[in-house]
Amino acid sequence: MAKKVAKKSKSTASAKIPSKKVKFTYLFGAKTDGNATMRNLLGGKGANLAEMARIGLPVPPGFTITTDVCTYYYNNGQSYPKSLDAEVVAGVASVEKQMGKIFGDENDPLLFSVRSGARESMPGMMDTILNLGLNDKTVVGLAKKTANPRFAWDCYRRFIQMYGDVVMGVQARNESERDPFHEVMEGLKNEVGKKMDTELSVEDLQELVKRYKALIKERTKTNFPQDVYKQLWGAIGAVFGSWMNDRAVLYRQKYNIPASWGTAVNVQTMVFGNKGQSSATGVAFTRDPANGENRFYGEYLINAQGEDVVAGVRTPHKIEMLAEEMPQAYKTLLSIRAKLEKHFKDMQDFEFTIEENKLFMLQTRNGKRTGLSAVRIAVEMNREGFMNEKTAVLKIPADSISSLLVPVFDVAAVKKAKVLTKGLPAGPGAASGVVVFSAAQAEMAYAAGKKAILCREETSPEDLRGMMAAEGILTSRGGVSSHAALVARQMGKVCICAASEIAMDYNRHLMNIGDVVVKEGDYISIDGTTGEVFLGEVETAPSEVIRVLSGKMKPSKSYTYQLYETVMKWADKYRKLGVRTNADNPAQAKMAIQLGAEGIGLCRTEHMFFEGDRIDAVREMILATDTSDREKALAKLLPYQRKDFEGIFKAMKGLPVTVRLLDPPLHEFLPHDGAARNALAEKMGVSPELLSDRCKALKEQNPMLGHRGCRLGNSYPEITRMQARAIFEAAANVIKSKTPVKVEVMVPLVGFVQELKFQASVIREVAEKVMKEKKVKIDYMLGTMIEVPRGALTADEIAEVAEFFSFGTNDLTQTGLGMSRDDSGSFLGRYKDLDILPKNPFASIDKDGVGKLVRIGSELGRSTRKNIKLGICGEHGGDPDSIDFFNDVGLNYVSCSPPRVPVARLAAAQAALKKSSAR
Amino acid sequence: MAKKVAKKSKSTASAKIPSKKVKFTYLFGAKTDGNATMRNLLGGKGANLAEMARIGLPVPPGFTITTDVCTYYYNNGQSYPKSLDAEVVAGVASVEKQMGKIFGDENDPLLFSVRSGARESMPGMMDTILNLGLNDKTVVGLAKKTANPRFAWDCYRRFIQMYGDVVMGVQARNESERDPFHEVMEGLKNEVGKKMDTELSVEDLQELVKRYKALIKERTKTNFPQDVYKQLWGAIGAVFGSWMNDRAVLYRQKYNIPASWGTAVNVQTMVFGNKGQSSATGVAFTRDPANGENRFYGEYLINAQGEDVVAGVRTPHKIEMLAEEMPQAYKTLLSIRAKLEKHFKDMQDFEFTIEENKLFMLQTRNGKRTGLSAVRIAVEMNREGFMNEKTAVLKIPADSISSLLVPVFDVAAVKKAKVLTKGLPAGPGAASGVVVFSAAQAEMAYAAGKKAILCREETSPEDLRGMMAAEGILTSRGGVSSHAALVARQMGKVCICAASEIAMDYNRHLMNIGDVVVKEGDYISIDGTTGEVFLGEVETAPSEVIRVLSGKMKPSKSYTYQLYETVMKWADKYRKLGVRTNADNPAQAKMAIQLGAEGIGLCRTEHMFFEGDRIDAVREMILATDTSDREKALAKLLPYQRKDFEGIFKAMKGLPVTVRLLDPPLHEFLPHDGAARNALAEKMGVSPELLSDRCKALKEQNPMLGHRGCRLGNSYPEITRMQARAIFEAAANVIKSKTPVKVEVMVPLVGFVQELKFQASVIREVAEKVMKEKKVKIDYMLGTMIEVPRGALTADEIAEVAEFFSFGTNDLTQTGLGMSRDDSGSFLGRYKDLDILPKNPFASIDKDGVGKLVRIGSELGRSTRKNIKLGICGEHGGDPDSIDFFNDVGLNYVSCSPPRVPVARLAAAQAALKKSSAR
Repeated sequence: MAKKVAKKSKSTASAKIPSKKVKFTYLFGAKTDGNATMRNLLGGKGANLAEMARIGLPVPPGFTITTDVCTYYYNNGQSYPKSLDAEVVAGVASVEKQMGKIFGDENDPLLFSVRSGARESMPGMMDTILNLGLNDKTVVGLAKKTANPRFAWDCYRRFIQMYGDVVMGVQARNESERDPFHEVMEGLKNEVGKKMDTELSVEDLQELVKRYKALIKERTKTNFPQDVYKQLWGAIGAVFGSWMNDRAVLYRQKYNIPASWGTAVNVQTMVFGNKGQSSATGVAFTRDPANGENRFYGEYLINAQGEDVVAGVRTPHKIEMLAEEMPQAYKTLLSIRAKLEKHFKDMQDFEFTIEENKLFMLQTRNGKRTGLSAVRIAVEMNREGFMNEKTAVLKIPADSISSLLVPVFDVAAVKKAKVLTKGLPAGPGAASGVVVFSAAQAEMAYAAGKKAILCREETSPEDLRGMMAAEGILTSRGGVSSHAALVARQMGKVCICAASEIAMDYNRHLMNIGDVVVKEGDYISIDGTTGEVFLGEVETAPSEVIRVLSGKMKPSKSYTYQLYETVMKWADKYRKLGVRTNADNPAQAKMAIQLGAEGIGLCRTEHMFFEGDRIDAVREMILATDTSDREKALAKLLPYQRKDFEGIFKAMKGLPVTVRLLDPPLHEFLPHDGAARNALAEKMGVSPELLSDRCKALKEQNPMLGHRGCRLGNSYPEITRMQARAIFEAAANVIKSKTPVKVEVMVPLVGFVQELKFQASVIREVAEKVMKEKKVKIDYMLGTMIEVPRGALTADEIAEVAEFFSFGTNDLTQTGLGMSRDDSGSFLGRYKDLDILPKNPFASIDKDGVGKLVRIGSELGRSTRKNIKLGICGEHGGDPDSIDFFNDVGLNYVSCSPPRVPVARLAAAQAALKKSSAR
Repeated sequence: MAKKVAKKSKSTASAKIPSKKVKFTYLFGAKTDGNATMRNLLGGKGANLAEMARIGLPVPPGFTITTDVCTYYYNNGQSYPKSLDAEVVAGVASVEKQMGKIFGDENDPLLFSVRSGARESMPGMMDTILNLGLNDKTVVGLAKKTANPRFAWDCYRRFIQMYGDVVMGVQARNESERDPFHEVMEGLKNEVGKKMDTELSVEDLQELVKRYKALIKERTKTNFPQDVYKQLWGAIGAVFGSWMNDRAVLYRQKYNIPASWGTAVNVQTMVFGNKGQSSATGVAFTRDPANGENRFYGEYLINAQGEDVVAGVRTPHKIEMLAEEMPQAYKTLLSIRAKLEKHFKDMQDFEFTIEENKLFMLQTRNGKRTGLSAVRIAVEMNREGFMNEKTAVLKIPADSISSLLVPVFDVAAVKKAKVLTKGLPAGPGAASGVVVFSAAQAEMAYAAGKKAILCREETSPEDLRGMMAAEGILTSRGGVSSHAALVARQMGKVCICAASEIAMDYNRHLMNIGDVVVKEGDYISIDGTTGEVFLGEVETAPSEVIRVLSGKMKPSKSYTYQLYETVMKWADKYRKLGVRTNADNPAQAKMAIQLGAEGIGLCRTEHMFFEGDRIDAVREMILATDTSDREKALAKLLPYQRKDFEGIFKAMKGLPVTVRLLDPPLHEFLPHDGAARNALAEKMGVSPELLSDRCKALKEQNPMLGHRGCRLGNSYPEITRMQARAIFEAAANVIKSKTPVKVEVMVPLVGFVQELKFQASVIREVAEKVMKEKKVKIDYMLGTMIEVPRGALTADEIAEVAEFFSFGTNDLTQTGLGMSRDDSGSFLGRYKDLDILPKNPFASIDKDGVGKLVRIGSELGRSTRKNIKLGICGEHGGDPDSIDFFNDVGLNYVSCSPPRVPVARLAAAQAALKKSSAR
């Protein structure tokens, strides 16, 4: 691999050193050059090793080769800066001095570990070489010095194996082949009749070393290096080489890490957890990463090296047991735990080794944690004085807050349950119930007091009532932004989409998942947070926060609620963006207000059309062949719509409500299949042929780009007129009952200012009339959704009429990318693999494309109307990354589904804090 | 109407005149202030009246009130500049002096006509008031002076009628009511038992005048004004008022005429064509507007006023007859005709009146003309020295040139034919044939040597071979950009779309058009230029130009060809844009080269997939469940594709060929209906269920936004690999046969640079391999279509990989506007009426929206790659308005269907000339 750059230590002794000397290695140990702030130069691991050494923690001495060397290496044809050789020699000498041992000494050799360490932890890069410095001679010295030949030879064979694999590239040559070192080991064990590695004798290990070396020679035509400096340079080169391997490149692309960052290399004195019963190695967290509780949490293995813990061959002990097994070391660990938190001011995840009762720290970093624990740790660390508020806010991944809101499966119950398959997690939470295959059945189950999981290939607006009645929704097609997913998130329902292994068989009332057949009425459970589908009923635990918010539990009784409350208060203190909700009825509106919504950013009127018997009037309206018939049908709808709006206005108590006029194409309201169509025809007293013809006539090639949005309102102004009347009459009635109303009428799908002009004239005319009739002044605004590119590109013209814009980023993504939400499932997976679209653009906004349209639209809109109100009501309104972007663009508010409101509040605060600190 | 501003002439005598006096009236006649260049100030009519007077043509004297007054009028609460009153009085006085008559004189009154005259001729505005100056007293004087009381009273009743209608607003009060003056006239005729207006006696006319005045009084509560100046100011006010009436406003919006232009008012001495047999009135063209022939063309009526010619009550005589009826006047007319052309340097359309053998010119303007005549007149006027080349090029509407290329119906035959219905003209030309209702029947008819018209609700790619076999295509649905229309234009087939009165009945092999039933095998004829559908076989005449270009006629034998040739030479001399063609096979490519194409800008590979038996292999490829099966099927396609490309490369002889890789979603290649699907299943030896399942799985909600374009190539790189191989092998083979090849490989639907990167790596790899295998260097470029907004918005990134862009404005329009081409028919009509979208955006580019994306894409592309080649290959490539825009953006070329190539060449020249003159 990097053999060509391996050098002898003496080679550059006479090299010219530049006048202003750049330092390429940083010591840690008795003398420490670096600290925790030097992450960019020393990598995360190196910076924290230095920091630990600096504050007096027991760190085996060593040195870090900086990321600058990595950059130099790739800018200069994979060569090193001239001064590096001397610095490495000096580093080794410094360690030799501290340890009183010499690197390569045949009697008492100093051994090193060599580890990579980038700015961010990066899977895919070379991790660790242990025991470096052993060769045919030093192994003998080590055996003598430790009086433990088995230990020495085991260390040697491990080193050859790691070095041969990682540095010299002796690996499985194809997918069907196994690790060749492993093969050799197994061969030998067979020959000598031993099962466990630990049973091998010193002679066996010596034989193994011989065979390993032969394997390397055979595969690489090169001998395993006996020169310890050659070993060291080989390992260093391998670390730098691994920065550009395929997996690392892919990982960086995925997480947008610049290649220019480079990696550092840590060369550190070996300490041994495998020197017998007084030695051990382990990992620990300063707090419980699962629930955030302030207790010591970790595990260790006696007489083992780091790799053994990871390999899982032996089961590690819980950290508490160390108090009994090695009380002194445990006591040291406890004090280190306290020191780490106090110093790093965050929950730490650290590695340690105990060599003959002496404890050494090998690594520390901020620990990964679950949503709940992130919240708890931040709140408690703030309370304990480790973190200030701003830091605590930034420390909690915004999505975490939602894990405090959803019901979850009982952990023990889940472990026992049988996983049937996995789909895309589309609506978080846990749900169990009987399997039903139609909306009607879901409603029947609900009426019978049974919980049901509605299982469909995909859902449509016709299924809406069934979805409401169901406990959870499972689809075999669609994606995280399919109809099912959207509605589920909107309703706060548990949902799994695209569980593609499931074959639905509606006719036979069953579904096949591989060999398993699940029949109608069978119980299943779905975890909308992980995407897992379980057979049978898995027990769930309810969310305390929701119980408190809805008054079913006292705040003082719930610690989780108190955590939630604290974080939300912080969030509201720092955020600049308003947070509204997408709500279509009073129940959703109430829930959203409880969760902190400051208004409704999107009230979709079409969902109302499906409720109760009103769908009949809707269908009558659609089938009308002239304006007067259409007006008659609309007149029937008017009282329903008015009542809907009254309910919502009352619930919102004067908070702003953005009502979007009818948006979807009319055919969405007609039944899809023949039987339903015939039933409808009979009900309406028209011939099935007529109905079928009308459905055919309304059918569209690309309904997404068809006759919908304001195109409907411009074709049939009577629809707009009815909706406007319902809105303003409702507002007038509610105002008369002493509840203030603030309504924003929103015209959808505007691409041309004239489209909006026509709609505005209809709406304003109705508003004037109603205000006169009712003798009430109604405070209203008139605006539009910006959801087709032309709308954004001509926003200056549109702002002449629109008093506000709400960016409809769902449709703007579909049109801006030319990508149908419903159809993109067939290639988005592949696009993710190819790293073309690392994130689903319907979940997290495509900043460079769709975001550019939002930015252009905002700027043009403001150029015409300085104080135009700008919001966003697509799915992206609840996505933290997108919220960060919207904060940056300077929108006034985001609007999201009710359960996402707390997430949006927190994300908005984080975005504001990041922006102000970036200034 | 404008009564409130009517003023007495004396009122402003003492008004202060601004120091630098602005002139508001311009005289014409013995003294003439204006000329033809003063269109903006005097309007078209006023400027040309002045010009005619200036060059000594007999123009009745008068004056023009400038457009500045109109502007003043609307900027100042509908009032006039103070100095206007005095200027009008002075104007009248000047005319009085010239004519030796006094305005309002009771013995020999001077009478005026008052006409509007804007910069551009504008229907919807007030046109003319004649005989102004007559009242109860002057009518008596006129009767005496002319010794013709009938003439005088007829003039008076006409004046009251016009004035009452236009100035005083006495009009039908609703749509069902008739013109009230007409009602009064009819009532009187009934009473006195007369049928024709001309039969009315002097006494009858006097009674009519009385009743007209009573009608005005009843309706307006105001008397018909007897003061002649009041009459004049009323008429002037009516002209200015009409500038802002609804029709005029709508017209201006439609044609983008600024309201600020305003109209002028022309006040001119009346001359009378209705003073007996020595008087006449007429209109004439200096050349034949139908075919452009250099002959005098016009018509006249003896003893009539202008309105009679328009009204069509009497049939006018041909102008030649005037030579016999009034030889002196005719001689004068001939000399005026020559003088007009020599002076105005264009074909003129003029109005004249002969009053007692004396000829007067009332108006002249550039005459409207057909396509053929536009070409002929420009070429001949250039030859005759009237027009220079640049002017001649600009004078020919670019679309005109196509009328020289299409077969047309014989004019006499059309007049006799029965019009069945009308649809949208979608593919110009004339075609007759037997009615067939399926592609298969069209092919059978073709095989039997019969011409057929393929009649379908709409067409799909499956119909392609049938469409090729048919003489013309008629659809009852779709629009000018439907599949049928696109393919028809591409093939140069005659096509009518959206003939919505037709009800197709495939089962009974007939179509109903109202009461008429047309059966399979009946003859119909379709005119793709007008959209008319005729019953029976209407005789056609072939295009001479095409016959010459294809070598079937000698150039010297065709005057039309010589005209075409001249214009095309001019066009090529001045244009900056390249003109390429969209061609999918060698025949199209050859035709396009004959028509002047400089390369292929879009070669769609999917059309090739339908030809011959290869569709079977295509379907096999689609139904393959793994890569290796797919590769097998693709291997079968390879030789076909290679052969296709060889044919095209040979035909293009080294001109550039842009090959677009597979674009449409795969389901387009599968049969749509059950029967065809079952037949295919049998043929392929798979179960109908499997095929049906696969079709179902491929079905998309919005195929336009689905799994297509480079998304296919990225999902199945083996498809790209096969196509690239076919392209490069074909290129290599053709190069070896000594024909140069210049190929540009184009990746469709790129929105993310990574999409293109992956495709580029596949293509470049294949190219290298083929060049090595064949030992040939192939000159190729690699680029992309920009057809989704994200592509345009991130064009700077994409240009890092793409060596050229071709803007796919069809799809860019669909995505940019969020408007499906196939579905927009349901609202585009309404949008045109509402003036939201005056032009079909799929026919003429939406400059402010889609055009903005093209501009952004071009600028960003050039910012990364300075010399990036930019073209456009949507339907807009053949639309003159769009071409003007593309020239302005600075694209390198446009690409259009073969028959549009000459149009594009001419339009490009015009765009270049306009741009250079605008500088």
